[in-house]
Amino acid sequence: MIMRNQISRRNFINTAAAGVAGLSILPNQGFSRSSTTTEGIHIIGPREGFSSHVGSLLSMMTWMRNVVVLGVADLTIKELDYLHDAKANTIGAMLLHLAATERGYQIRTFDWNIDFTGDGKINWNAAMQLGDQGRQAIKGHNLDFYLNILSETRQATIDEFKKRDDNWLFKVDPNFFQGMPTNNYCKWFHVCEHESNHNGQIKWIKGRLPGAKAGND
Amino acid sequence: MIMRNQISRRNFINTAAAGVAGLSILPNQGFSRSSTTTEGIHIIGPREGFSSHVGSLLSMMTWMRNVVVLGVADLTIKELDYLHDAKANTIGAMLLHLAATERGYQIRTFDWNIDFTGDGKINWNAAMQLGDQGRQAIKGHNLDFYLNILSETRQATIDEFKKRDDNWLFKVDPNFFQGMPTNNYCKWFHVCEHESNHNGQIKWIKGRLPGAKAGND
Repeated sequence: MIMRNQISRRNFINTAAAGVAGLSILPNQGFSRSSTTTEGIHIIGPREGFSSHVGSLLSMMTWMRNVVVLGVADLTIKELDYLHDAKANTIGAMLLHLAATERGYQIRTFDWNIDFTGDGKINWNAAMQLGDQGRQAIKGHNLDFYLNILSETRQATIDEFKKRDDNWLFKVDPNFFQGMPTNNYCKWFHVCEHESNHNGQIKWIKGRLPGAKAGND
Repeated sequence: MIMRNQISRRNFINTAAAGVAGLSILPNQGFSRSSTTTEGIHIIGPREGFSSHVGSLLSMMTWMRNVVVLGVADLTIKELDYLHDAKANTIGAMLLHLAATERGYQIRTFDWNIDFTGDGKINWNAAMQLGDQGRQAIKGHNLDFYLNILSETRQATIDEFKKRDDNWLFKVDPNFFQGMPTNNYCKWFHVCEHESNHNGQIKWIKGRLPGAKAGND
């Protein structure tokens, strides 16, 4: 379920006691407020049912995804398809790009023997490449289209994480790219921070949608 | 030392075997290639001298910082001061914003009893607020100015991390913001992903600097 509130990721609080005016603070609105659980959204760390570091990674990925999803709540098809300039990607294309990236790393790290392009219902190649391909192929979808794909893709990751342990997470691919050893933790941390990277761009574009109020991004 | 190479964060590799054409891959150029170490840049996980999860967090922060720093290598003062539109932040201001954010979380989570504004040599408030304040106050600095502040700020974090353990990392602030429990791991993960968020914007602007070649961000 998507919270239909507007959120501003950079909320400023006046923390006079610490002398920090305007400390960049965590996004707040719309998060679950189950404050009695030890597995609340702002609690990063091990998770029941997962090995210690796998659970910690998942808690980061969950937190990050919440930020992305809350940031796009209420966007219309027109807004999701808005192209700021000829080089830009739309917000919709970037959302699908996040799912495509996760799918790519699933195939690589879970040793799935499937074709990346799938059954043709989703243009995964365009989502991965973005640019001209993305601008041409990814449009006309509503928010739920993107959120459902993101959610389904994430659920598959969670299912696989459950089957694996920290030894798998720390497993090193000696030659992942140009001879540099890379472990699965790094690959999946990249999937996570990559969402923040594009979220920065999503916010930038969102602040420049026709009729948007001034933002600082 | 900053590697003076151009890097492209979204490098595409043809992984025909896995059927993933154009899988978004980790940034590659400029990273240390000490492939024999178990603590290489693309190895996320515990680090010698730090408790298990603190070291893992630090390895992510180090990886992320490398991406940011490599992405701005070679930028001139004019480019660091480039303002894309009236709402935008400059790349320079965003770099200082990353240091300001880290400083804010240092004060909050390490219980430093110091004034956020420091000795006045750096306009920390403008760096934290960005927007009009940032546009007015942060300009005319070369890349080393920003990188030195980032580096000094990070070193202080590392020094404090060394003194702390996973119990500290998992310590919950019951009312960090609007009644939501938040642990130190979450606060510092936010510091880390926040760099990626702005890095996405830095890349977006970098691709639109006067004379820039076409990018897909």
